[in-house]
Amino acid sequence: MARYLALTGGVGGAKLALGLAHVLDPDELLIAVNTGDDFEHLGLTICPDLDTLTYTLAGENNTELGWGRQGESWNFLEALEALGGESWFQLGDRDMALHVVRSQMLRNGATLTEATQAIAQSFGITHRYVPMSDEPVRTTVHTADGPLSFQHYFVRDRCQPEVTGFDFVGADQARLIPQIEAWLAQCDGVIVCPSNPFVSVDPILAVPGMRAHLERLPTVAVSPIVAGLAIKGPTAKMMAELGVPSTAAAVARHYAGWLDRFVIDASDAELDGTLSVPTVVAPTVMVTLADRIELARTVVRAFD
Amino acid sequence: MARYLALTGGVGGAKLALGLAHVLDPDELLIAVNTGDDFEHLGLTICPDLDTLTYTLAGENNTELGWGRQGESWNFLEALEALGGESWFQLGDRDMALHVVRSQMLRNGATLTEATQAIAQSFGITHRYVPMSDEPVRTTVHTADGPLSFQHYFVRDRCQPEVTGFDFVGADQARLIPQIEAWLAQCDGVIVCPSNPFVSVDPILAVPGMRAHLERLPTVAVSPIVAGLAIKGPTAKMMAELGVPSTAAAVARHYAGWLDRFVIDASDAELDGTLSVPTVVAPTVMVTLADRIELARTVVRAFD
Repeated sequence: MARYLALTGGVGGAKLALGLAHVLDPDELLIAVNTGDDFEHLGLTICPDLDTLTYTLAGENNTELGWGRQGESWNFLEALEALGGESWFQLGDRDMALHVVRSQMLRNGATLTEATQAIAQSFGITHRYVPMSDEPVRTTVHTADGPLSFQHYFVRDRCQPEVTGFDFVGADQARLIPQIEAWLAQCDGVIVCPSNPFVSVDPILAVPGMRAHLERLPTVAVSPIVAGLAIKGPTAKMMAELGVPSTAAAVARHYAGWLDRFVIDASDAELDGTLSVPTVVAPTVMVTLADRIELARTVVRAFD
Repeated sequence: MARYLALTGGVGGAKLALGLAHVLDPDELLIAVNTGDDFEHLGLTICPDLDTLTYTLAGENNTELGWGRQGESWNFLEALEALGGESWFQLGDRDMALHVVRSQMLRNGATLTEATQAIAQSFGITHRYVPMSDEPVRTTVHTADGPLSFQHYFVRDRCQPEVTGFDFVGADQARLIPQIEAWLAQCDGVIVCPSNPFVSVDPILAVPGMRAHLERLPTVAVSPIVAGLAIKGPTAKMMAELGVPSTAAAVARHYAGWLDRFVIDASDAELDGTLSVPTVVAPTVMVTLADRIELARTVVRAFD
């Protein structure tokens, strides 16, 4: 039996994590989730990346929207807007329940890990996923318009401001949660899901100790850039603004120093053999569940 | 021009308050609302009596249910229940917006009065209504099963435990809000709406100074008991459990010491002239808006 730690952020990462959960048993996989996107809003602690994974693993993700919860309604948000409340963050009626329950657990003294485990159990999820840290890490996006908290950049301002850099506020005081430390002590490799390198993966790497584990352990990453485009989200736009080519090759360079094998899409096959890291060429665009499972198999095989 | 202060609690009181808002101009009426029912729930400050009045004055009350907000949906509550959250208090999706907005205003340092005024303005309500106090007063219902916070008694336990008495925790430290004090200094009379005497009216009277104002000013109350029955809610059941006859006469005795005129229903006409306080006999069961307006006219005329 081999054991893997997977690192994931948003929707793309959750797709591969679901594939991994189909390919690996619960005792073969621990998923560490970015919390840099988390924020306090309307008195609630909202953890978008954890929630994306919860909904995805529970089969409760909204496939129509591509984000949020299945069978969602928006009556709260509509009433909130009519009352002049802050309605820029799309909080669905059913999604609200998760934020309210977690916020209450946190107020009552639970760690984010404990709250996440309780929520996973409520949803009947048997694979284990945890926040990277119980201490708050908050991504600040530096832009031409000034610094923005991640959700202000991502949702409120729709990724429009030009990005100049990032800060992971609190990361230097944060600790990897004990479950991740314990797992890393006995695991066989780290899988980096196709998530945004700058705002999904880098915050996890910013938690002290994580990068050293990646340098020490076999690592396989899946490129979030396919044929110069991000499947979803602002990765390619960010790269352009940061003066980096929006290519899988640039992502490989970004991961240099710890990446051992890079899974790139068949449409980027011409990069095979040209990167400083060995590549695996495979279909990486996950449309169906079968795609997710097939890519998960590819990733696990890449450790051989 | 005459000026009136109206005291109100739940649904019955709000019906008359709506009638009064049709009969009196905004500068002739201030409505002081019971806050003894308020509670902290799921991280929100919920003020059921204030909200009942808000929805009633805004024409947003749910006439099908007899409580809550019009056009309500329950997707949040359903999802909350599935997550094992505390779902005994019926929080509708649209209603949630009000609790979230108010709780945020209170966390940001607004008084309950300021939050109430902002909410009233959002709903386009021109008549003025305020909490009795900005300091928390919380009704404890003493029962044969032990003490219960009001909403646990009223909603969670559906008024089933046998009532032995009440405490208005915090009332002795509470102050009437300045707007009520100022209004009382220049007003011509106090209207006590047909609300529960024990848990809607008594908490307002428990705020230091209120009773002295009632003793000093002309007062007209409308009986919440009609032909031995409460139109809505546990008033009659409470009276029976407290060893008091569930009659309009017993309510008049409960209000003895400050009540000047008591409006009783036509079905209780035989009590006319038998009480220690002068009575006005009128239809008090408010089914239609016309009923509310007509009763409001009767009450205002009773001050002559």
